[in-house]
Amino acid sequence: MAIEFDTIAAISTPPGEGGIGIVRISGDEALEIADRVYRLGSKKLADQPSHTIHYGHIVNPKTDTPVDEVMVTIMKEPKTYTREDIVEINTHGGIVSVNKVLETVLQNGARLAEPGEFTKRAFLNGRIDLSQAEAVMDVIRAKTDKAMHMAVTQLDGNLSRLIKNLRQDILNTLAQVEVNIDYPEYDDVEEMTSQLLIEKAEQVKNQVEALLETASHGKILREGLATAIIGRPNVGKSSLLNVLLKEDKAIVTDIAGTTRDVIEEYVSVKGVPLRLIDTAGIRETEDIVERIGVERSRKALSEADLILLVLNQSEPLTPEDELLLEATEEHHRLIIFNKTDLENQLNLDDLKEKVDPESIVQTSIVTQKGLDELEAKIAELFFAGNTGEKDATYVSNVRHIALLHETIEAFDDVIEGIETGMPVDLVQIDMTRAWDLLGEITGESVQDELITQLFSQFCLGK
Amino acid sequence: MAIEFDTIAAISTPPGEGGIGIVRISGDEALEIADRVYRLGSKKLADQPSHTIHYGHIVNPKTDTPVDEVMVTIMKEPKTYTREDIVEINTHGGIVSVNKVLETVLQNGARLAEPGEFTKRAFLNGRIDLSQAEAVMDVIRAKTDKAMHMAVTQLDGNLSRLIKNLRQDILNTLAQVEVNIDYPEYDDVEEMTSQLLIEKAEQVKNQVEALLETASHGKILREGLATAIIGRPNVGKSSLLNVLLKEDKAIVTDIAGTTRDVIEEYVSVKGVPLRLIDTAGIRETEDIVERIGVERSRKALSEADLILLVLNQSEPLTPEDELLLEATEEHHRLIIFNKTDLENQLNLDDLKEKVDPESIVQTSIVTQKGLDELEAKIAELFFAGNTGEKDATYVSNVRHIALLHETIEAFDDVIEGIETGMPVDLVQIDMTRAWDLLGEITGESVQDELITQLFSQFCLGK
Repeated sequence: MAIEFDTIAAISTPPGEGGIGIVRISGDEALEIADRVYRLGSKKLADQPSHTIHYGHIVNPKTDTPVDEVMVTIMKEPKTYTREDIVEINTHGGIVSVNKVLETVLQNGARLAEPGEFTKRAFLNGRIDLSQAEAVMDVIRAKTDKAMHMAVTQLDGNLSRLIKNLRQDILNTLAQVEVNIDYPEYDDVEEMTSQLLIEKAEQVKNQVEALLETASHGKILREGLATAIIGRPNVGKSSLLNVLLKEDKAIVTDIAGTTRDVIEEYVSVKGVPLRLIDTAGIRETEDIVERIGVERSRKALSEADLILLVLNQSEPLTPEDELLLEATEEHHRLIIFNKTDLENQLNLDDLKEKVDPESIVQTSIVTQKGLDELEAKIAELFFAGNTGEKDATYVSNVRHIALLHETIEAFDDVIEGIETGMPVDLVQIDMTRAWDLLGEITGESVQDELITQLFSQFCLGK
Repeated sequence: MAIEFDTIAAISTPPGEGGIGIVRISGDEALEIADRVYRLGSKKLADQPSHTIHYGHIVNPKTDTPVDEVMVTIMKEPKTYTREDIVEINTHGGIVSVNKVLETVLQNGARLAEPGEFTKRAFLNGRIDLSQAEAVMDVIRAKTDKAMHMAVTQLDGNLSRLIKNLRQDILNTLAQVEVNIDYPEYDDVEEMTSQLLIEKAEQVKNQVEALLETASHGKILREGLATAIIGRPNVGKSSLLNVLLKEDKAIVTDIAGTTRDVIEEYVSVKGVPLRLIDTAGIRETEDIVERIGVERSRKALSEADLILLVLNQSEPLTPEDELLLEATEEHHRLIIFNKTDLENQLNLDDLKEKVDPESIVQTSIVTQKGLDELEAKIAELFFAGNTGEKDATYVSNVRHIALLHETIEAFDDVIEGIETGMPVDLVQIDMTRAWDLLGEITGESVQDELITQLFSQFCLGK
């Protein structure tokens, strides 16, 4: 049985013009409110079977003037997104039409939903746990196929099941400890109990550590690998950029709220999502050769997880090249020996003494030579060939990662406590803390403010 | 029975991030294709009753990896938007998720729909006529309530019914003429037939003219009245702008494909939709007083249907004011005598000699005085108080207006033909032309290229 809430409504489709817009209503009165504004003869939506869709008009009930011609989907609880009654009004996808229908619904009894409030209800009504709710926004914000796939897997509850199993393990141990303390049948019960706690702490800690090892990959899959293409003008940066962008997976997004020239471009290279940094800068410097020089590249360096340093092997190293080689020494980098279609003027052996030979790739971007090797190196550098597991569970959410780290600390306290001979009831407290921390990932133990804050980052209408 | 087409698919929601995205599929194979990519146990969508919605996953059928968690609506022909089988896949509203689901559908047998192709099929399959199809895009693009309402009315077939009645009238007359010619029972049949033709031509012509009289209002309702607020700096332009924009009906849109500073703002004043011109300019000139001066105002003048010329009555007329008064002489204008809260320094009687006293409104925008009068004057100027008819049929589409003008010419030819004693069979040709022209509005007589061209202006997914 769902907790009782008021009835909420919001526009659930992206803003703008399109074929269809959706106004979603959820709550006990969803059907009643919908029937106040829906007209098709004397048909009542409340009388219709669940999970059906109906043609009709939305009207202003006071004047009976039609607002829009619509299709209305009704879904009765409990088998709905929120576990409440849901009505979805499919309107024409114009700015006025969708807003006008929403306005009519709000004037007839619904309250405007807060961002993420539908998903919050799905969580509060127990249909999904917190990590699944977070996955909903990850699916929506995903910029690459991999990120999307990871989020869908989390939405399906893979991470939740794993965490729940770990918590059950801890709980069983804590229960056993209680039994031992309450019924000390044997003299060595204290020792047995300590043994039990330390073994379980170490075992679960190992599993949490294994999960955390996926985190760096998970974060890359989720956010993309911040990648900078640098090099002095005319070495082939923008050709490389264009080759990468030509992949049909490229997504270009404007970042909301910033100036127009900050553009993020995402490409998928052998399953590794690259978020290309300052691509506008690359285009600019190649257009207006020497104007900005390497200065802008330095800025890109500071933000990058991966640097693709392009050199022109048909010319000897210039002081600028040397400068860039030096500046990127401490970074994950690949050095691209470009223009192999032209005569070689750059001593490869000299260079190999200065840099890791493994990081060098020889290419001719114009003739498409060496690009496969470049892509393979990128994949190898970050995943050691390990990007393809279909059903792997990744941790990618910073909140989860922080909680897992805290959980490990709690286990360390358990282990240290036992080793230094602390009383069992004090060690129990640390073990319970670990259990609580894992519960915060799935939302089983979690504070109201956190929930409010989490869902406020959602988009409207979800 | 619908004409046979291949099966098409497209994203029907606006681009961007939101709670829900929709991939729509229409055609004979819609259900079959959906079943290839839909998974929920062994459930088959094709076996489900029409107009129902189903939970499940979209998967890549080759690898069985989940693409997204979805709700799928199935609607079987003929009671659908296109009169074909329709499947609508409701996905998470992210850029990747919606595109990924579309991609999966396209890889499994659907073809990407052209812009407007769903609505084109609705027309070709006879569910709606051409004027209704055009109304679909008018609904989506509507910028004000009135425009939206007018489009919904047209979508409901008001204009179609009117046009069809006129065509039926003409057809009846043409049939009667045939009968008279084939069975000349009386000697005066020639004269009777001429009489019949001229009477009907005049009668229908009057009705078409009455319809055309709504066109100027219809166009304003549809596109908004291009309105310029002008005046020298510090007379109160931006305060007036803000007062108008404070109405909760204001809509601001970026115009796609132009630079950022071209912004259209729509407000509804007593039912009259105003499209405010160069509001960015107003804000700018008030910020950076005197920098641009009246120059920019002159440009706004050339585009405006209505000019709101603001004067500061607490200062004597300046040469700039005189200039603006002169420049707007030939335009629809209201002269706003602002700042009546301050002492009057401007001779109203002098001014009344130069301009139509009816066009003067005294306001104090700061104290909100005179604003009602201003709004009433705007409504009066354009609609003579005649904006509120709930069920009036307006012609607003330029294509329709042009066809109605041509129809009138055809009737004039009929009338002139009879009056100059042309043979009846020649006059019949002009009468038939009128009938054809009206048919082009509803699409009953219309060429393929026109149809292709019309629907290509639609948005994707509709």
